[in-house]
Order: sequence, then structure tokens, then C-alpha cells
Amino acid sequence: MTTPSLPDLADHYTPEVRAQAENELFGLLRVPSVSADPAHAADMEQAAGLLRTKLESLGFSARVDATEGHPVVYAEHLKAAGAPTVLIYGHYDVQPEAPLDKWQTPPFEPTVRNGRVYARGATDDKGQAYAHIRGVELLLSAGELPLNVKFLLEGEEEVGSPNLEPYIRQHQGELTADAIVISDGSRFAPDVPTVTYGLRGLSYVEVHVTGANRDLHSGSYGGAAPNAIGLLATIIAGLKDGQGRVTIPGFYDGVSELTDAERAMWAELPHDDAAFAASIGATALPGEAGYSTLERLWARPTLDVNGIWGGYQGEGSKTVIASTAGAKISMRLVPGQDPERITRLISEHLKATAPAGAQVEVLPLHGGQPVLIDLENAYVQAAGRALEHVHGVAPKFTRGGGSIPIVAVFRELLQAPVVLVDFGLNEDAPHSPNESFALSDYHGGVLTSARLLQEIAAQAQTRTDSPA
Amino acid sequence: MTTPSLPDLADHYTPEVRAQAENELFGLLRVPSVSADPAHAADMEQAAGLLRTKLESLGFSARVDATEGHPVVYAEHLKAAGAPTVLIYGHYDVQPEAPLDKWQTPPFEPTVRNGRVYARGATDDKGQAYAHIRGVELLLSAGELPLNVKFLLEGEEEVGSPNLEPYIRQHQGELTADAIVISDGSRFAPDVPTVTYGLRGLSYVEVHVTGANRDLHSGSYGGAAPNAIGLLATIIAGLKDGQGRVTIPGFYDGVSELTDAERAMWAELPHDDAAFAASIGATALPGEAGYSTLERLWARPTLDVNGIWGGYQGEGSKTVIASTAGAKISMRLVPGQDPERITRLISEHLKATAPAGAQVEVLPLHGGQPVLIDLENAYVQAAGRALEHVHGVAPKFTRGGGSIPIVAVFRELLQAPVVLVDFGLNEDAPHSPNESFALSDYHGGVLTSARLLQEIAAQAQTRTDSPA
Repeated sequence: MTTPSLPDLADHYTPEVRAQAENELFGLLRVPSVSADPAHAADMEQAAGLLRTKLESLGFSARVDATEGHPVVYAEHLKAAGAPTVLIYGHYDVQPEAPLDKWQTPPFEPTVRNGRVYARGATDDKGQAYAHIRGVELLLSAGELPLNVKFLLEGEEEVGSPNLEPYIRQHQGELTADAIVISDGSRFAPDVPTVTYGLRGLSYVEVHVTGANRDLHSGSYGGAAPNAIGLLATIIAGLKDGQGRVTIPGFYDGVSELTDAERAMWAELPHDDAAFAASIGATALPGEAGYSTLERLWARPTLDVNGIWGGYQGEGSKTVIASTAGAKISMRLVPGQDPERITRLISEHLKATAPAGAQVEVLPLHGGQPVLIDLENAYVQAAGRALEHVHGVAPKFTRGGGSIPIVAVFRELLQAPVVLVDFGLNEDAPHSPNESFALSDYHGGVLTSARLLQEIAAQAQTRTDSPA
Repeated sequence: MTTPSLPDLADHYTPEVRAQAENELFGLLRVPSVSADPAHAADMEQAAGLLRTKLESLGFSARVDATEGHPVVYAEHLKAAGAPTVLIYGHYDVQPEAPLDKWQTPPFEPTVRNGRVYARGATDDKGQAYAHIRGVELLLSAGELPLNVKFLLEGEEEVGSPNLEPYIRQHQGELTADAIVISDGSRFAPDVPTVTYGLRGLSYVEVHVTGANRDLHSGSYGGAAPNAIGLLATIIAGLKDGQGRVTIPGFYDGVSELTDAERAMWAELPHDDAAFAASIGATALPGEAGYSTLERLWARPTLDVNGIWGGYQGEGSKTVIASTAGAKISMRLVPGQDPERITRLISEHLKATAPAGAQVEVLPLHGGQPVLIDLENAYVQAAGRALEHVHGVAPKFTRGGGSIPIVAVFRELLQAPVVLVDFGLNEDAPHSPNESFALSDYHGGVLTSARLLQEIAAQAQTRTDSPA
């Protein structure tokens, strides 16, 4: 299925070049570009600057554009007149590193153990984004770029990209492309290269519960005063029924069911519930009744509490009835669900069903649209050929459980197909302590990126050369 | 009902003496003697040293005794041969000050506003314990002490007095007394002086729930992986039924019901649910169905979550499924319930009913026996007369919702009646930010303490003088 006539770039990707590619990535990983924490503003600038300088060194016209939040790095290499233009999106911001005490080595001191680099952002998304930069560099090392390439690297993906949509609207003409390529997720398994054709959306809220107007002594008041933590626990427990289904009225309205073809395709994937549970040390896999694990992960909406707090968390015992308690709650959404509507539904539901004594406040944090991509698209197929060339096996087409909210925005504003080709793995532990990225996956990503650009240029050439 | 022949000490309690009594207390309040936090070890020593020095200045033989935890201050003034001996118990340790940002003035900088001193420990228990020291001083200023007095001031009450019972066993002979006086709670209302004849016990545990063996990305795993926070919320919500009753099997076994006389006595107390709710800013008073608020607070066991934590608590949104979550859960117990048995019951129940995917660990933190005191006891009646003398109104006999676990130990080991005479108020906000103590209550405590000692000495004299 690959295109045999294309020059093989593996010969150009020598051990020396690989070492250089690793060192450059490690330099970027050393910058603690945590977008959620205002204290890291200078680090965001530093990371953006590193990327601009690198892209300029490859002959790109590059700049760092300020936004109302963290800056956007934009770069373009438009020297292949008549050839297609590919926009590569990635993000240089990372998740907060907490809990710090669970990291084996410091999160911003990249450390290689057993062929993996451990650092916050190693796989999500610095490693995967940088693989494309080095992919372009590899292609350049073999001659000219056979197509036009644009990079759009943002610094706010981990906080919901609040300023990217305005940026894209403002630069809509400049960002025009024939296809948009994104690598910001996980492929199915180490031996299974995948093209992702679906993503879940997101609705993320914070809930505050107030009981009394001050913390109270549990002896003097216990038995009669509202307990904010107990009330919050009751509220959370009530958000799912005994079948693991979300109880918010209207939550499942409009949800697209899986096709028989998809169910059959996924049933063939190498997946084993026991091995999956063992891989995360879980004694059970609680979830919505009536769906397989892969169906729950990729095609069903869900609700998770991402954080909770209230009362005394210190050493020993404090006999207090906390005045307030809070939680962060997010819902992964699937095609047919609108994030704004879901955020409104949960807000109304939490207030309408608040137990006696609970004063409930709901703050929407962020949201994102779910995405479903046409498998037959030529650029999606080109990605499949690139993966097969690099890995030597035919790729699988899967969906992902995560969200890249900006994908829906790209499709709407730029009217171009999005290609999701993931170099990472779940075992990289993105968002967790000890996040890592296999160096072999990094280099595979570099080779895949270069090959994908070759494939896209070649298929355009073929179309141009063919008689009408 | 008071004993009119006793010399009135109010004349000796001049404005100058009152100012001195306040300044001394403020000095003690400045020492951040937080027993729960190992970082405050030196502060514990300092507070204990202040008390020893003060008691020595009053002619007591005083010392600071090391324990396996924080030290005990013991002092005795045994110069009234043949007269009764009273042991006064108090504690110089205080609750942690968190949440610090809710204090109007720093917790360890005592500040007087509107006749109240604001500081951590102001009412619980430095202010109330120091009132007894100044009560003895007041009595001394009028002449000789008419009875023998012992002080036992511990530094671990707020962490469950782990080393006090061994200390009492070791010094059992030395601590012998005819009565034990404790002021470490709240009287019923500003205008209602009270003698407390019942206390609730306590069972306090910490619960840890583990789902997966590491934090997970909620996109990659949401819908199939166990969520430790969600599981913990389900566990907590399940600990009470729709009637506000604790669901742990056997929890209510052996609970003593109120007598009709008690119900009638309490029904006469000035209490109004709406005013009570308004005083704590609560929109409802959730609790066990079938009992009045005072009955729930004083005579019914309950269960409160005192703290909860898990996942991301920082700014913004983090899409993580936390590996672990935890909570501190305490139960107030009433006569008929044994803390060790209740701790065992909740531990077994939490493990036996853990939802699928939850790995549950329960750590017992501390416990204490409930107490019920004979209202007809002569020392309890003497306290009533002392209160009536100082306040000019007959006191009420009530129970308290809090726990002083060591009371049961005193009764068992020293075989002496315990007299609970509280100078504080719930509105002092013990255990909360902006804890305070009315200076009028402090001075009332000094006068009550001195009068109580007079009353006890006088009634012993009366008995001795009476023909057999």
C-alpha cells in the first residue's frame, strides 16, 4: 500500500542525526512550560522562543504571536509553488507536574531509562510535535521540501485553548491548508500503528458546595449542621446510576450509536480486559453496562471526578465540619453531544437536585466538540501508507477517548481535513507522574512525518500528472 | 442555693488584677502550640514551661513531665491537711490554625475586638484552663487556699491524648483527688450558665481508596478505569440512609435512649431551630429523623466527614483520573457505644461493601468513651451553686455534643467524680478560624473557679462539723 517510488529517508537518519534530534527535544523538555500555572509565564515565552529559533534555522519564516494568554508559534515554509500545503498543529505547553513526590526523576530534568525519556511533556505533546519538526528537517536533509508546510504550535492546549480559536479566526487566510496534521495522542498498542478517526469532546466544570458559613466543631454541631463534604459526596454519588450511566436528564440525547462495521472492526483489535486492568493495576473496570471496554473508551460519553477537596487534609485528626468543599468534574462527549449544552445540563441538574442544606455553585471551566473523521479521505489514507512504510505492517483505524477540542475548530474555520496520526502510547502516562516517550517512537515519528509529507506531495503529483 | 456565708472574692478582682490576668493569658496564646504538627515541638515545650513557671509563682510544686509525645504539666498545692483535694484538668495544645486565609487577624497574635480576644486556643482550652489558674490566684490573694489543688495540663488533647492514660496510670497515687474539675467546652447560651453531665465519645478513622496504580489521563481511560474519587464519594454517600441514619450494621446497638425527664428538661431550654440555623448560615439542618436538634447534638451518635482529598486541586482544569483519594471520617458516640467496637465495625463495613474497583484501607486515628455523670453528686451540685453565685441565675444541666475522651479514663483510674463546668460558648468558634473568648467569660471563669473551690471546701467543713 505504500508508494515504492519515493526516496527512502531512513538512510539519512543516521545515529548522529538521531542523537542530535534527541538532544534538541531534551532541551525543550527542560523548560517547565506549565500553562495552568501563572507562575510559569516566562517559561512559556522561553519554550516558544526555542521553537521559533529552530524553525527559522530550517528556512521557515517564523514568529511568536502574543495572545491574551500564552503565545502562539507560527512558522511557514512556502517554497513549493503548486504543491499542497500541510498545516502541522501541536502544543508546547504541558500539564502541571503534581504530585511531584511520585516522580522517580524530576519532571523537568529529562532522563533516559530503558530507551525512554522521562519528563513532563515527553509524549504530550513536545515529543510528538518536535518529531514533525525533525521530520521536516530530515526531508530537507535529502533535498528540497516537495510541498508547503506551516506549523501552528500553541501554548494553551492543556487549559482548553481559550485563545486559539480567536487566533485562527484572525489569521484565517494565512493558515489556509489542504490538510491539517496532528500528533497529540496515543496509538493503539506498541505493535499496532494507528490512524485515529474520532475523538471525544469535553465538558469540564468545577462544583463548590457550602454548608454552614464557617468551619464548625464536629462535637458542638455534629448531627445537626450541614456537612459540605458529605453533601458533595452525595451529589457526586448521585451522578451515576447502578448501571454506570450518567443520571443527568438529557445527557444521552442525540448520542450517535456505533455502526455494526465499527463494532466489528474494533472487535478484531488485540484487546484483553484482564491485561488492560492489569496494566493499570485495577481490580475491576467499572463502566457503563452493555458496552465493551473499547466502546466505552471511544464511543460512549462518561463522567469523571478529576479532583476533590474540603476540610482538614493534614496529619492526624481534626474534628471539624468544613464550611465548603469542591470538586472538578469532567465529562467526555461523543458525536451528537454539544459541550455547551452538556455544561448547561449538569449545572442545572446539580442546582435542581442539591440536597437540603447544600448551597451549590457550578463554574464552567472549559469544553470541546467531539470529532468524527471520514476514513476515505485521501490525506487519511496517505497517513496510513506512511505508517505502513515505517512500521512494515498495515495500520489500524481507531478512535481515541481523549479530546483535542481545536480539531472541530480547524475543520470549521479552515475547511480542511484533519489527519490524526499518533506516535505515543497510553503507557507513556501523559498527565501522570513519570510521563515518558520511547525514543524509538520519537524516531518513528520523525520518519513517519517525513514520509507522510512525501506521500502527500506524491499523490498530488500523481493527480496532476494523470489525464483528466 | 449558693452558700451566703462565704467571703465574696469579687472585691479582690480589681480592674488592675483583671488586666494582669488578660495579659498573662495573651502571652500563652502567642505560643503556637499545635499538637498535630510535629514542626511545633519547641512551641509545646515553651507553652508547658510558661505554665510551670506561673504555677510555681503561686506556691505550687510544679514540673514538666516528658511523655512519648508532648509533655504534661503537673503541679500541686497540698497545704490544707484534712480538706478535700481537687484535680483541675486542662490542655495547653490547640487545633491547627488552617485555613489561615480565613483569619481576620493572625491566629497567634491575640487581638481584642468588641470585648473578645481572638486567637487559636482562646476558648479551647488555654482561656478556660488559665481561668482556673487565675481562680486559684484570686483565692490566694484573699488568704490561704482552703483546700488542696492539683493541676494536670496536657499537650495532646487535640490529637486524642495518646499518652495521657499511660501517664495517669503511672502517677495514679499522686493524682488521687476527691473531684476532678474540667472546663473545656461550651455552656448552653450567653445567659444560661450550665453544668454539663454528658459528653459524646468519638471514633475517628482515615480511609484511603485506590483505583488504578497511577494517575491516568481521563481521555485515554475515562469510562473504563476505576476513579478513586468517584468510588470514595459513593462509599461516603452510602454511610447514611435517606433518614440520616448511619448504615453501618450494629452501629446503634446498645445506644441508651433519652429518659422522659431529660427530654422534658431539654425541651424547656431556650432553643430555636431557625435561629440556630441562622447562627451558622445554614439553609437546612440535615440530621437523623425523629429527634430534636438538641437530642441529635447531645444524645444521638452521628457520622461526619472531616476532610477529603484526591486528584487535582490546583487552578484551572486537569483531565486526570486520580489513582488515590482519601477522607477523614469521625463518629460521635453516645452512652452504650464503645469506640473500639465502632472503629472495628466501620473498618469491616467499608472493606466489605467496597464498590468494584475500589481498594480500601482504613486507619484508626483515635477514639474516646462517651460519658454520663450523676446529677445528684455533691461536687456537681457545688458547681451549680458557684455558677449561681457568679451569674445570679440558677444554672441548667445539659449534655455536650463534644468529646473529652480522658473523662472516662479519669473516672475509671482515679475513681472520683468529674465536674464539667464550661466557661465558653459555641460562638467562640473553637476549631474554626477566628476562634475567640469573651473577656467577660474569662473573668467569669476566674470567679467561678475560685467560688467552686470555696464551695467544695465549705461543704466538706459542713459535713465534718455536723454531728454523725
